[in-house]
Amino acid sequence: MRHLALTVSYDGTRYAGFQVQKNALTVQAILQKTLRQILKENIRLLSSGRTDAGVHALGHLVSFKTASAISGGALKRALNSLLPPDVAVVKVESVPLSFHPRFDKALKTYRYTLRNHPSRSPFDRLYTTFYPRPLDLSAMKRAAGHFKGRKNFKSFQAKDKKERSSIRQIRRISVRRHSPYVFIEIEGNGFLYKMVRNIVGTLLEVGRGRRKPEEIRRLLLKKDRRFAGPTAPARGLCLLKVTHRSR
Amino acid sequence: MRHLALTVSYDGTRYAGFQVQKNALTVQAILQKTLRQILKENIRLLSSGRTDAGVHALGHLVSFKTASAISGGALKRALNSLLPPDVAVVKVESVPLSFHPRFDKALKTYRYTLRNHPSRSPFDRLYTTFYPRPLDLSAMKRAAGHFKGRKNFKSFQAKDKKERSSIRQIRRISVRRHSPYVFIEIEGNGFLYKMVRNIVGTLLEVGRGRRKPEEIRRLLLKKDRRFAGPTAPARGLCLLKVTHRSR
Repeated sequence: MRHLALTVSYDGTRYAGFQVQKNALTVQAILQKTLRQILKENIRLLSSGRTDAGVHALGHLVSFKTASAISGGALKRALNSLLPPDVAVVKVESVPLSFHPRFDKALKTYRYTLRNHPSRSPFDRLYTTFYPRPLDLSAMKRAAGHFKGRKNFKSFQAKDKKERSSIRQIRRISVRRHSPYVFIEIEGNGFLYKMVRNIVGTLLEVGRGRRKPEEIRRLLLKKDRRFAGPTAPARGLCLLKVTHRSR
Repeated sequence: MRHLALTVSYDGTRYAGFQVQKNALTVQAILQKTLRQILKENIRLLSSGRTDAGVHALGHLVSFKTASAISGGALKRALNSLLPPDVAVVKVESVPLSFHPRFDKALKTYRYTLRNHPSRSPFDRLYTTFYPRPLDLSAMKRAAGHFKGRKNFKSFQAKDKKERSSIRQIRRISVRRHSPYVFIEIEGNGFLYKMVRNIVGTLLEVGRGRRKPEEIRRLLLKKDRRFAGPTAPARGLCLLKVTHRSR
């Protein structure tokens, strides 16, 4: 038995997220179907996490066990010739049998992209959130600093019964302008359901002067979702990479 | 009566080109319908030219006459709130009544984008042509130089009965790499039907060593489409801008 990890890029626009669901098109279902077709085995993918409907990925990490002796290069070519144009495999690598793409200190980096310009653009519509109003970047940067570290993010967690603890660690968070875009990047060991989009929605309220940067600290202590800002739209979010200890 | 010019951006993926056609979705039809809805007049658009099905535009120039006193800013906002997400108006300006976006030494700039990398990307699939094989850029640059100037481009013209002359002038043509992309930019006063895509298809044959750069001169003298390379796919082509004397 071998254990192979795949780094996968996808445009999430037409998918109901990564994870298999009944009666919905998901990236995991398409990948599993294509792997079964190539390897003639009942492949079951392990994933570095779920992504929500409409969220994109440049480097989602998944893995699976196989009895096949196929080379990484041949598997990558076969996958990319059979997968639809909005899903592509970037890398195939061999990992230890004990590997799990979700555990072992996996570090995930998300990027949220805003088009912060008075006019919308047809070419940005799928991968950015259009936000025409001016944003106070220095206030957003100060607010972002309050999210850094190991905290209870219950105020930024959508209802989800699966998670026992709402304590997570944000290792890095940055807000920068590269006109006409504003990028918000967040790196951490794990994220609660819709946590990144809820942080972005709250940072946008700071950026337009509706909240003070210092409010974030109090907001975290509230541990109540109702006090944070709205969930930012899925289309602006992209899972950039998953870095792993065993790599 | 006023004459207004619109600079329009569109993602051409789902359109049968710019120009109105029976039983097909076109950008002109959508723009005219939306203008009529806003201005309650029977608007007829003049265009800087056609674009083929699937071709994109960052700055297509069109114009129309109206009795309305609406301000440019208000018209732009109304259009962008009613147009579909894959079409946007970038600029509205007043032009002389005698203006025609196609004539008066209008200069058009096209960009063709190739993704020249071993792997395809979901995010590039709509706006680039995937070309995984290595390309000899210096040969392509030499070949491109032979297209410059006032020439008979009959060898690069798709069949089209409307055009009386196949003489056109290319003012500027460049080939450059900005990894993973290769950009081919062409500027001229007018282009024959599929001329840019036929030039790109021929440059690609030079880039992969199937033709010598010097062949281009002979090819132009043949005045026969059968001797040139294939038509490059529409998705990689974008009309960047139309610059006009009266502006």
